[in-house]
Amino acid sequence: MMGPNGRDVYIVGVGTTPFGELWEVSLRELITDAGLAAVNDAGIRGPMIDAMYVASASAGRLLGQQHLGVLALDEAGLASEHIPATQVEAGDASGAAALRTAALAVASGQHDIVVAGGVEKMTDVLEGDQTMALASSADMEWEGFAGATLPGLYAMMARAHMMEHGTTRGQLAQVAVKNHKHGAKNPSAAYPFETSKEAVMGSPAVADPLCMFDCASPVDGAAAVVLADEATARDLNGPMVRIAAASQASDVLALHRRESITTFASTRHAAHAAFDVAGVGTEDVDVMEVHDVYTIAELMGLESLGVFKPGEAATATEKGRTSYGGDVVVNPSGGLKARGHALGATGLAQAAEVVWQLRGEAEDRQVEGARLGLTHAVAGTGGTSIVHVLEAVEGGGS
Amino acid sequence: MMGPNGRDVYIVGVGTTPFGELWEVSLRELITDAGLAAVNDAGIRGPMIDAMYVASASAGRLLGQQHLGVLALDEAGLASEHIPATQVEAGDASGAAALRTAALAVASGQHDIVVAGGVEKMTDVLEGDQTMALASSADMEWEGFAGATLPGLYAMMARAHMMEHGTTRGQLAQVAVKNHKHGAKNPSAAYPFETSKEAVMGSPAVADPLCMFDCASPVDGAAAVVLADEATARDLNGPMVRIAAASQASDVLALHRRESITTFASTRHAAHAAFDVAGVGTEDVDVMEVHDVYTIAELMGLESLGVFKPGEAATATEKGRTSYGGDVVVNPSGGLKARGHALGATGLAQAAEVVWQLRGEAEDRQVEGARLGLTHAVAGTGGTSIVHVLEAVEGGGS
Repeated sequence: MMGPNGRDVYIVGVGTTPFGELWEVSLRELITDAGLAAVNDAGIRGPMIDAMYVASASAGRLLGQQHLGVLALDEAGLASEHIPATQVEAGDASGAAALRTAALAVASGQHDIVVAGGVEKMTDVLEGDQTMALASSADMEWEGFAGATLPGLYAMMARAHMMEHGTTRGQLAQVAVKNHKHGAKNPSAAYPFETSKEAVMGSPAVADPLCMFDCASPVDGAAAVVLADEATARDLNGPMVRIAAASQASDVLALHRRESITTFASTRHAAHAAFDVAGVGTEDVDVMEVHDVYTIAELMGLESLGVFKPGEAATATEKGRTSYGGDVVVNPSGGLKARGHALGATGLAQAAEVVWQLRGEAEDRQVEGARLGLTHAVAGTGGTSIVHVLEAVEGGGS
Repeated sequence: MMGPNGRDVYIVGVGTTPFGELWEVSLRELITDAGLAAVNDAGIRGPMIDAMYVASASAGRLLGQQHLGVLALDEAGLASEHIPATQVEAGDASGAAALRTAALAVASGQHDIVVAGGVEKMTDVLEGDQTMALASSADMEWEGFAGATLPGLYAMMARAHMMEHGTTRGQLAQVAVKNHKHGAKNPSAAYPFETSKEAVMGSPAVADPLCMFDCASPVDGAAAVVLADEATARDLNGPMVRIAAASQASDVLALHRRESITTFASTRHAAHAAFDVAGVGTEDVDVMEVHDVYTIAELMGLESLGVFKPGEAATATEKGRTSYGGDVVVNPSGGLKARGHALGATGLAQAAEVVWQLRGEAEDRQVEGARLGLTHAVAGTGGTSIVHVLEAVEGGGS
C-alpha cells in the first residue's frame, strides 16, 4: 500500500460489538469485546500483538478518561506485555485514523501485528453534552461557540446542494430508506428496521431541511481490526484482505471558509490519492461504506469520491444504483444511519463490513462476487476525510 | 531507527513557544507559533510538509475542541494543501507519542517530511478542571472517581520509595533545586529562577511528602519537531539529528495493580528496547530530558532507565552526578519542573532541548561535546513511557 520503502499491509481479523444504547456495558468492556472478537477472527493470541492504536473522540470530554490506548490494553489483560498503545483522534473519522496509523506502523517495519480499535460511549450522557461532543469536530471558536451544531451546519450544506443541483427533500430521504433497507439485515445494527420516504420526511425537524431520520444517531459501540505484514499474514493461514491504499486529507475546519459547501474537498483529495496508489478507479469498486452521518453527507460523499458527477448522486440513489443490483452497493451494513454512529468505532466498523463482504461472509447482506471495497470516513463537516481501498486476496487461506 | 524495512528518520527542525501562563495567547496561536519556529529552523516552506501529527491531552475536555490536527493545519494556513493531520494522545506523554507516530510515518515511506506538534492550554481554566484533566491519564474508574489525583498517587510512590530505599525528603527536594538551577538559564522556561532545598521543603504541602515545589506546574505552551527521511534531510543541507530509537511501552493504569510502585515498568521496557535498537548503553548518553512531573518521578525515571541502580538516584543527584560535570546532564532545560508542564507540548519540548544540545546551540545550558541524547516521557503514573534516543550527525550541514 505504501511508498517506495513500506511493506504491504493486510487485514487478518475484524470484530465489532453490537451498536446501540448499551447502558449496561462500560467503555472498557466494549473495546475489549471488539478486540477479542478481532483477535479470535485473526486466529492469534493476545501476546502476539506488537502494538495497539485506539480511537475515541469523546471519552475525555464525556467520561473524563484519557490515555485510552493503555486503558484498552489493560482491560484486555495485555498490559503485562508492555507493548505500545496510543490513542488516535480525528473527530468522527477517529476510527479510520487509527486504522491508517496502525497500517503505517506495520508498513514501517517497526511492528508486525498491530490492532486498531475504536470505541465510543455516547448514549448515557446529557443530550447537550452529546451535541457539543459532536460539534467539537467542527471549529468551536468560529462555529460551536456561535451556536452552530453539526446538524445545523449540515442543514446549510443540504440547502446549498438543493439550490445548486436541484436535489429534493424526497431524494435526501431516499438515502435513509436505502440504508435502513440494508441495515435491516445487519444483526449488529442499532436500528435494524426498514423505513419509508414518508416516515423520514414526517419525522421531527432537527435543522431544516434535515429531520430526525436524516441524522445518524450517536450510539455506543466498539470495533477492532488486526493488521499484519504479508509474511506474518500468510503464516496465520487465514483469510487476508490487502490494504491497497490508505489516504487521508484535510480541509479548513469552518464551513464559511470553504470554496464550496456542496462537496467535500478533503474527500476529493483523499480519494484521488487512494485510487492513484491502488491503481484502480471508482468503477472497479464493488462495495463501499460511505460516511452518511446525515443523508446529505452520503450524496456529497459519493460525488466527492467521484462515483457520481456533482449533483447526480441523488437521482442515482432514487434509481437504485447505490444498492444491490446497481452500480455499487453503498453502505450494505446500513451505514451510520441504521448501524448507528459510535464515533471512534465507526471507521473500523466500516472496515469490518467491507472485509466481511470481500471474504464472502456477509450473509444476507453479501454483495455477490465483491473483490474490491472502499471505506470513507469524514470528521465534522469535512475537515478530515479518510479513504481506504481494500482488496480480496486470492488464496489467502480462506 | 526502525525495523528491517523502515527508513532512517532525522530531526531537521525544532521550535517551541515560551512556556507559562499565557492568558493572552490562544491554543491555535500557540501551536502555529511553535510550528512556524520549527519549519523556519528546518529551512522548509509549509507546503513541503506531507503530514502532521498533533498532540494534546486536554483540549477536548478543557476547551471543548477536538480534531486538533486539522485545527493546527488550518491555523497555519496549510489546510489548502489538504495533507493528513491527526491528533495523537497518550496522557502526559502525548507529545512524545506524536513524535514517535510521525517517525513511523516517515519510516513507512508514505511521507517524506512530517511535522509533530504538541500544545496545551492549562492555566485559564478552573483549578478543579485542571486537576481532573491531569487525573484523566490515570484510571478514572479505579482512581479518579475514588478521589485519587496525580499528586496523591505520586505521593504514595514517594512514600514507598522512601520506605524501600531510604530516600529522604531532602533528597527529593534536591531534584527540584537542580532542575531550577538548570532552568534559570532557559529563556523559554515558565519558572526560570533558582531555588533552595529549604524553599522546596518549606513550600505548601500538596500531598505528603510532596510540597508545591516538588510538583511540575501545568502551563500553556507548544512545541514542534520537523522530521524527514535521510535523502530529504541531506537535500535540506541543515543540521541533522538522527532518531536512533523510538520506543514506547505500557503498564497497567491503576497503581494498586502494579508489581512495584517504586519503579516504572513501562520505562524499563521502553529503555531496554531503545538501547537495544540504538546499540548503545546508558553510559553513552551525554544529555537527557527525564519526566520530572514530580521530584520522585525523576528519581524513579533515572532508576528505571538504568542510569542508576534502584535506590541510588537520590544520592547520585545530591552528589551532582546528574548535572554539569557529572555522569550525565539530566534536564538541562529545567525539566517539567522549571520549564513547566504543557502536557501535549512537553515531549516535543524535551526533543527540542536535546536537539539544541546535540547541535551545540544550547547557549548557557550547553553540555560540552554532547553527541548522544535521550528523552523520557511518562503518562499518568507510568501507564505509558516513551524513550527516544537521538544522535548527532557528523557533517549534517551544520
